[in-house]
Amino acid sequence: MNIRFCNARILTMADGMNIIENGELHVRGDKITYIGSTEKRENLTRQWDKTIDLKGNLIMPGFKNCHTHSGMTFLRSRADDLKLQDWLFNEVFPLEAKLTDEDIYYCTKLAILEYLTSGVTAICDMYLSPKAIAKATEQLGMRCVQCGALSGDVGEGKVEKMRELYNSLNGKHPLTSYRLGIHAEYTNTKANLEEMAKLVDELKAPVYLHNSETAREVEECKERYGMTPTAFLDSLGMFNYGGVSFHGVHVTDEDMDIMKKHNMSVITNPASNVKLASGIAPIERYLEKGINIGIGTDGPASNNCLDMFREMFLVTGLAKLRENNAAAVDAYRVLEMATVNGARAIGLDDSDVLAPGKNADLIVIDLHQPNMQPINNIVKNIVYSGSKSNVKMTMIAGKILYENGRFHVGEDEDAIYRDAQNVIDKM
Amino acid sequence: MNIRFCNARILTMADGMNIIENGELHVRGDKITYIGSTEKRENLTRQWDKTIDLKGNLIMPGFKNCHTHSGMTFLRSRADDLKLQDWLFNEVFPLEAKLTDEDIYYCTKLAILEYLTSGVTAICDMYLSPKAIAKATEQLGMRCVQCGALSGDVGEGKVEKMRELYNSLNGKHPLTSYRLGIHAEYTNTKANLEEMAKLVDELKAPVYLHNSETAREVEECKERYGMTPTAFLDSLGMFNYGGVSFHGVHVTDEDMDIMKKHNMSVITNPASNVKLASGIAPIERYLEKGINIGIGTDGPASNNCLDMFREMFLVTGLAKLRENNAAAVDAYRVLEMATVNGARAIGLDDSDVLAPGKNADLIVIDLHQPNMQPINNIVKNIVYSGSKSNVKMTMIAGKILYENGRFHVGEDEDAIYRDAQNVIDKM
Repeated sequence: MNIRFCNARILTMADGMNIIENGELHVRGDKITYIGSTEKRENLTRQWDKTIDLKGNLIMPGFKNCHTHSGMTFLRSRADDLKLQDWLFNEVFPLEAKLTDEDIYYCTKLAILEYLTSGVTAICDMYLSPKAIAKATEQLGMRCVQCGALSGDVGEGKVEKMRELYNSLNGKHPLTSYRLGIHAEYTNTKANLEEMAKLVDELKAPVYLHNSETAREVEECKERYGMTPTAFLDSLGMFNYGGVSFHGVHVTDEDMDIMKKHNMSVITNPASNVKLASGIAPIERYLEKGINIGIGTDGPASNNCLDMFREMFLVTGLAKLRENNAAAVDAYRVLEMATVNGARAIGLDDSDVLAPGKNADLIVIDLHQPNMQPINNIVKNIVYSGSKSNVKMTMIAGKILYENGRFHVGEDEDAIYRDAQNVIDKM
Repeated sequence: MNIRFCNARILTMADGMNIIENGELHVRGDKITYIGSTEKRENLTRQWDKTIDLKGNLIMPGFKNCHTHSGMTFLRSRADDLKLQDWLFNEVFPLEAKLTDEDIYYCTKLAILEYLTSGVTAICDMYLSPKAIAKATEQLGMRCVQCGALSGDVGEGKVEKMRELYNSLNGKHPLTSYRLGIHAEYTNTKANLEEMAKLVDELKAPVYLHNSETAREVEECKERYGMTPTAFLDSLGMFNYGGVSFHGVHVTDEDMDIMKKHNMSVITNPASNVKLASGIAPIERYLEKGINIGIGTDGPASNNCLDMFREMFLVTGLAKLRENNAAAVDAYRVLEMATVNGARAIGLDDSDVLAPGKNADLIVIDLHQPNMQPINNIVKNIVYSGSKSNVKMTMIAGKILYENGRFHVGEDEDAIYRDAQNVIDKM
């Protein structure tokens, strides 16, 4: 489809927070081909399959949900208000043990619908059954970077399986990619981690992982190895080709230096961190150190929603609280994290800003709603008072997948709801 | 209008968190007349002006936004990311000084539209120009409890003016009431407060106020009077007929005992408290003491949105963080605060639960959206993953004011947006 947007405000994010007024954006196939002021030729509409008059609404890059476990939708509201250990060992793990690949396929589809309502155009997913996840995301049209989650016993051939997934999921479908990953330091033996470091060396690839989410995790690692998780894994060569730390709540200055040295990114998940009482990540300090930051929702069992607007407010709000300074981590920094910097963190360099040649991964924000009025500052409106109700359209790879509250994913949403409900009902 | 809802799930909140399945709710005029299972008579529809098949969606009491400054919408996104003193003295106060009664009327109307999108059926508003606020809320159909905001110099006849407002705004319109109020301890002289305490004695009425929002405010009061604001005001007899503390972030056990003794309520405003780096209110401790709690958004200059879903998540999330306990302040307690307990805090005893004879102040939550699926626990879905996008209908006093994204307030929303924009543009 060739689509022309006109009468748009456009926040490309290629030029700071400048907004093009009365702008025009063209999409051909899966790419953006033009961004600029509205053209005047009278016969312009003839070239387009569709012309969309945005009436002053805003086009901007879609949000990148840089850490999630989509398949956990079946657990939403099933196990809340529990202490972390009760939650994990008495609720999450026993129910997860019953999941089939097909269950994960259904639950991932439900999550994708929710991402679309929140303007998410790419996810970084870590969960069981990578091929089922790829099937769901490719079918519905979601851009997905998956990562491995090594844990347990490598004697089970898990590292070999990860090599196989790395080779079979990368380069096969334009929406899908796969990164090396370990679940966390605390869920692996040293032998596992050493085996993984060899694979890193062989593939020369970054490693994604849960890192320093809780104080307890860090303390136990120091007891085991005399080092923080970041320092210990670095000592094994795990980050020689970079990496991505999910959470990064409890880190030292030395940890940050290691991350900076290896050009690693941090993904912050504030809603999950407060709901599980894990703490507040030192966002301002990361920014001072020049470490790239993205934002994730974490999974629906711990959050429980997959809404980047809530996350954005929490990133800035919690930073202000943590630093005891209402000027800390302003709205501009947060919007960069949720979009451009998130894209860069998870290796989606063609889906970062809006520019000709970039992937047409974009959203339309409805400014004609009371929470977006008056228009004193659009970026601050989005970060401080924005809501998923303002997402008027979500486009991924040039396809309109969600518009005006309706899904266009080639499947009936009620059937997706039923399939997901069935997963938990039969347990 | 006589309206019949059928095929509804109904959370009356008169019976804990029990939900009536396949329920029926009738509204005649401004009251609820029936709640129960669906009636079978074939000619039932003939009696109704409108029958609404909810297809399994949920009816519940509307949210009570128990602390706001609606007229401050003109400042939304105008002054963020500033330290509190800069924000207040360099931005808020100079711009507020230019506001006319008419400006506040326009800005309040904008806020009312936003409340409706978030399922708010009553507000407790503290702002300049009470008569302009009453005009706006009565015209658009919002239930509004206003409170005074004594500050400055009582020599200007302010206490007399409050008595006049108390008499002229109470009992005149079914949607409007007015309570005594002082802005805060720190914005009043002792003479003001003594004068106010006399009025309390005369009218035998509770007093609403900003109380112990910041640590600095408490410290300065202790320097002035050797007591916390709560203790000092109590010593003047200010709370002899009860009262409502907005914020209540920095309080002692003795403060809580005073509140409990006078049957006072606390209104927590978590988004504002994090954005201005004021701190986290001790919600769990208030609950332990048996003190009634409601929830407010505070004004759009400090929040910046007027969205009770964000507030609900923050109440539980921040409590979990503060107590370092993921089991703290669960979803049930939070939903009670946002609805029933909020209503009781601000004296709206006829708008608390859903029951025959109560005001028809209710909302419909759309469960047919991905963030409400699967249905493991509806209350937890609302508190942990709910969003204003789930508000399918907002009804106040039997009138449908918002339904399926459209307003029915008798005025064009674009005109309201324009009038509010004009207020800030002309400054």
